Amino acid sequence: MYSFSDKLKNLNGTATREILKLTARPDMISFAGGMPAAECLPCDTIAEIASEILSGKNAASVLQYGQTEGRPELNAELVGYLSSAGITADVENIQVVSGGQQGLDLLCKAFINKGDVILVENPTYLAFLQIAKTYEARAIGVDTTADGLDLNDLEIKLKKHRPKLLYVVPTFSNPTGKTYTRENRESIIALCKTYGTVIIEDDPYGRLRYGGELVPTMKQLDKSGETVVYVTSFSKTVAPGLRIALCCGAAEIIRKVSIGKQGVDVQNPALCQMVIAEYLKRGYFEKTLEKNIAVYRARRDAFLAALDKYMPKDVKYNRPEGGLFIWAELPEYMDSAEILPEALEKSVAYIQGNEFFADGSGRNTLRLNFSNSNEARIEAGVKILSELFATKIKERNNG
Amino acid sequence: MYSFSDKLKNLNGTATREILKLTARPDMISFAGGMPAAECLPCDTIAEIASEILSGKNAASVLQYGQTEGRPELNAELVGYLSSAGITADVENIQVVSGGQQGLDLLCKAFINKGDVILVENPTYLAFLQIAKTYEARAIGVDTTADGLDLNDLEIKLKKHRPKLLYVVPTFSNPTGKTYTRENRESIIALCKTYGTVIIEDDPYGRLRYGGELVPTMKQLDKSGETVVYVTSFSKTVAPGLRIALCCGAAEIIRKVSIGKQGVDVQNPALCQMVIAEYLKRGYFEKTLEKNIAVYRARRDAFLAALDKYMPKDVKYNRPEGGLFIWAELPEYMDSAEILPEALEKSVAYIQGNEFFADGSGRNTLRLNFSNSNEARIEAGVKILSELFATKIKERNNG
Repeated sequence: MYSFSDKLKNLNGTATREILKLTARPDMISFAGGMPAAECLPCDTIAEIASEILSGKNAASVLQYGQTEGRPELNAELVGYLSSAGITADVENIQVVSGGQQGLDLLCKAFINKGDVILVENPTYLAFLQIAKTYEARAIGVDTTADGLDLNDLEIKLKKHRPKLLYVVPTFSNPTGKTYTRENRESIIALCKTYGTVIIEDDPYGRLRYGGELVPTMKQLDKSGETVVYVTSFSKTVAPGLRIALCCGAAEIIRKVSIGKQGVDVQNPALCQMVIAEYLKRGYFEKTLEKNIAVYRARRDAFLAALDKYMPKDVKYNRPEGGLFIWAELPEYMDSAEILPEALEKSVAYIQGNEFFADGSGRNTLRLNFSNSNEARIEAGVKILSELFATKIKERNNG
Repeated sequence: MYSFSDKLKNLNGTATREILKLTARPDMISFAGGMPAAECLPCDTIAEIASEILSGKNAASVLQYGQTEGRPELNAELVGYLSSAGITADVENIQVVSGGQQGLDLLCKAFINKGDVILVENPTYLAFLQIAKTYEARAIGVDTTADGLDLNDLEIKLKKHRPKLLYVVPTFSNPTGKTYTRENRESIIALCKTYGTVIIEDDPYGRLRYGGELVPTMKQLDKSGETVVYVTSFSKTVAPGLRIALCCGAAEIIRKVSIGKQGVDVQNPALCQMVIAEYLKRGYFEKTLEKNIAVYRARRDAFLAALDKYMPKDVKYNRPEGGLFIWAELPEYMDSAEILPEALEKSVAYIQGNEFFADGSGRNTLRLNFSNSNEARIEAGVKILSELFATKIKERNNG
């Protein structure tokens, strides 16, 4: 009955959010979502910090309005946090945001007019595709290679569309778990610089490395500091429920992001900001991260071992060095979205891969999360999925 | 150097935010802003609740991802909270948002295409005018009377523009402190129903009544439940730093608001949501509100007494029955924006009135906040302002 905006009238919520509601059932083994392990959430530490903040002399200021850019104590810690990751930034280069998601949304708000093209990896983070829709942008996928983006395809599309933005998750990508090489990153930056395209480097997983060699962030490799805007979050490394993340980029861009945030929600809750500030200041971050990495490494290994043991050989999957996801490809003739209801019936959830493709392709792919289930459930779930896929393959071969 | 979006390229932050930065100076007597009194922020209660939540059995779930619509414990409390204010709502009618501001932003996102008209009271909440700009909407002001909106002017503009939205702050309005009569509210709803216009009733101040008779909210008077979307917040009654507010409206509208929020920031921090849920559940809300009302009533009375005592009689001002603001009109030939730098130099801040007018008029008006200064500072600040305005009037009369 209502006349909704063009932005939202055809959006009915992502498939992911709907699947995530199903996965709240305790019997469900969920390889959907991208939730940190409950065991990795630092409840005691945060309880201790929050209690000190709220009974301390600055308690009233934490409950009062504060500046949009971020709580000064947090922004000061973030300068150090970025510096320890090799990124040089000043306070004017940082905006605190409500989850990486808000950073992506505000960057689109700052740059995108209706009809503008945004280049993305194909496949890419599905929520970014949804954000692009709400800004009535055209998300166009760039082909990939084992090293990262296909540079020829990237240059063709930069030349053709002259896009304002390229969006990438170059480290332990969502959904594929892939990491771009240093050379690929440098070439992407050089190309984008030439065509005046700003790169959004979304890096929620970079700190979750379980093996292999560290690759510098694109933000580190962007010597001018003008081409890459870096978005990172404490959702995967501390606690998503606090909704603390940051954008780091040229002061001129960050100023627009701040103005966008003023109109949207004024500021992040100061209590959550102070919790992260103290968490960093007291050195809990590195210590807890190390423990969490051990948990996630074990889960990744268990997942890969179960896949190796049970999955039919026609199903391909990668072996990510970090992050939260394994990416699988079924034989071309199979459709992961069609099979999903049967998997859910058997109490195993995953995300259908086509959700991550700007062009809706990739129907034979799926994303598997390994962070949020313990080893026993991982083995049980992978076994169920493997048997289901094997049945489908057998039916096809017999039919 | 960057090519920003049409939405943001001409937005350089509200004058208010810039003034608010100045008012952080401890010597500044600030009648700008709309901050609750630091003394009214329930630090001890919130410290106690937060500590119990974070050491309780649901601590991990508070730090984990949750559903976009709102934490179920909070949404259940909000049904009761609204019911006690005479508003019948089910969970499907409620979306938790990050401050009333986000509710307004998401409602614009749900309804507004570039170029759409939004009717607003003239003057109105300045941040709403900024939000309208970010959606490239045309905000058109409706004339007012002592009773509320001028119904003739409203009907002419509804007929002419067929707007999707009318935005009003009908109770202790920001900026004027005015309250629409019940009859005026009923007529506005009937007219908007006829023309298919959705009313956004922004009500952050309604619970802060210091005298006079309770007037029903427009949401209560909207018998069909289809015309009015109600936005209210705990920023003025509990603590703005928690950023907890809600939208209440027809399920179809709330669903779009939820989808908009999914893309924007996924959810409010669960800790802040649980703090408000427990604050309501344990009955702290009504008890604390009563104490806070006594503080604010005394400040309003002190402000009016100082105005009566010091302000030249050419300066007019109202006597609001609630809320946080007094609205003043200087003689027509004066410009409050021009005088503001001199006031700031004398360490008194206010907000220039023209910021609140969709058409930039009202240059002789100003908004005065009385909640955030104690009685001594109120008297001192009003005296300084009165003398400054008196000097200007005298100069004019002598010149």
